[in-house]
Amino acid sequence: MGPMTIERTAPVFSIDIRIYWEDTDAGGVVYYANYLRFMERARSDWLRARGVHQRQWQQEAGIQFVVADLQLRYLLPARLDDWLRVDVQLLDCGAASMQMRQHVWRDEVLLVQGDVRVGCVQMQTLRPARIPPALRALLQA
Amino acid sequence: MGPMTIERTAPVFSIDIRIYWEDTDAGGVVYYANYLRFMERARSDWLRARGVHQRQWQQEAGIQFVVADLQLRYLLPARLDDWLRVDVQLLDCGAASMQMRQHVWRDEVLLVQGDVRVGCVQMQTLRPARIPPALRALLQA
Amino acid sequence: MGPMTIERTAPVFSIDIRIYWEDTDAGGVVYYANYLRFMERARSDWLRARGVHQRQWQQEAGIQFVVADLQLRYLLPARLDDWLRVDVQLLDCGAASMQMRQHVWRDEVLLVQGDVRVGCVQMQTLRPARIPPALRALLQA
Amino acid sequence: MGPMTIERTAPVFSIDIRIYWEDTDAGGVVYYANYLRFMERARSDWLRARGVHQRQWQQEAGIQFVVADLQLRYLLPARLDDWLRVDVQLLDCGAASMQMRQHVWRDEVLLVQGDVRVGCVQMQTLRPARIPPALRALLQA
Repeated sequence: MGPMTIERTAPVFSIDIRIYWEDTDAGGVVYYANYLRFMERARSDWLRARGVHQRQWQQEAGIQFVVADLQLRYLLPARLDDWLRVDVQLLDCGAASMQMRQHVWRDEVLLVQGDVRVGCVQMQTLRPARIPPALRALLQA
Repeated sequence: MGPMTIERTAPVFSIDIRIYWEDTDAGGVVYYANYLRFMERARSDWLRARGVHQRQWQQEAGIQFVVADLQLRYLLPARLDDWLRVDVQLLDCGAASMQMRQHVWRDEVLLVQGDVRVGCVQMQTLRPARIPPALRALLQA
Repeated sequence: MGPMTIERTAPVFSIDIRIYWEDTDAGGVVYYANYLRFMERARSDWLRARGVHQRQWQQEAGIQFVVADLQLRYLLPARLDDWLRVDVQLLDCGAASMQMRQHVWRDEVLLVQGDVRVGCVQMQTLRPARIPPALRALLQA
Repeated sequence: MGPMTIERTAPVFSIDIRIYWEDTDAGGVVYYANYLRFMERARSDWLRARGVHQRQWQQEAGIQFVVADLQLRYLLPARLDDWLRVDVQLLDCGAASMQMRQHVWRDEVLLVQGDVRVGCVQMQTLRPARIPPALRALLQA
């Protein structure tokens, strides 16, 4: 993971989320795996905002996106009732995968930073698949 | 939910589970929805112990089990590191559903009791489906 | 659980939620335990809307709400990308517990109905505690 | 993340886990965040096997372990009913943190590899704390 600067060249898409009991653990803070849930929500909403309906692509083209690798840095914890902002930036879109950068913020404080590579795969075999041109056009719009 | 006596006529199947951070919440106890996860693990292992392989029935017969209704009573909380026993009893097996009783114990102390009705459905439509005779034979063995 | 009519006398509070990958299972539908997560979100937001800040009550009065028992009826499944409405009605507020009715809707279609009794407990002992008058005033406002 | 060789010098601790419905998503495979749950189970059991009782350290010394950063590589998906092995190796134990390597296997096939740095923190402030000598002795035993 590179330095924790925000890539200013790529547009930033973000969603707001509330922290509920389900997100916390007995340490009184958000359980570490749950930030991946929040980050996936932001990626799904980013896709939706671009007109990419995942269930439709799944059913009609037999493809879906899966995470290939990720790097996470946990800087500060979130707690019950917190109101967080989760963002996503498309850094690069290759033939069969996308590289994304994501942050989780509470107000202006950075809590978590992540770099996520998402691959396009065939649903049945889960083997890498080329991103169809029509889908790519939506992603890069 | 009837009186909290254990049906002694139906055999009891049980599994042991450990409570991890993922299961707890900021109240310091197990999050209430997670007992449903534990109870489903016990039902799945009970099916497996009878030779019912859910993924195979899903793929070959296009049917699966889904919970139709449930009643839960939370008596005492579980905590991090607890070692629990989760049991399951088949109370009744109808044409398209099963009635089960389940308990969650820590040693001899009852923490949660649940009554769960599980229906057999067609995977695509999720409409009720008759339990095939071969499957029924395994369930009632 | 009584007949599935909506209590028209109690005001209805509701939230909207999106279904993400995290909520679904390999059956292609929302995993049954996750409706309890959605229902808890609605209860927490209902409390928040009335000025009840759970973390504050936890820290300052040493009390919290826990679910004592519940009944759920699953009528129809939700799927990935669905946009659902989850509501909550306070049916009764006793000395140390509240009785609530909740529904999960997709448009005008009822997917899940639940009756939930939530008890007020002391955080350390998790023993039942009287709902303090100041808190009760907020709940019944 | 370095090359995907297993560090042969550090002893390997492992646990076996079953994949249940709760772990899967509508893509038919294990949801990507859930591998972090499995890896935490392995770390917790590794601690337990060394005589480190997390709840006790939390209550008596006011410290707990939290994940500071991680890198994950997803190679192949797991599915419902799979029986997996999750391992953990302590690569390095510093003054206030531990570096661990973890793998998720199905038989001899590597599904997921992760590098996780776990920090010791004060429970109240969540600020870094030195690992007490008595705890360090258990970790390095």
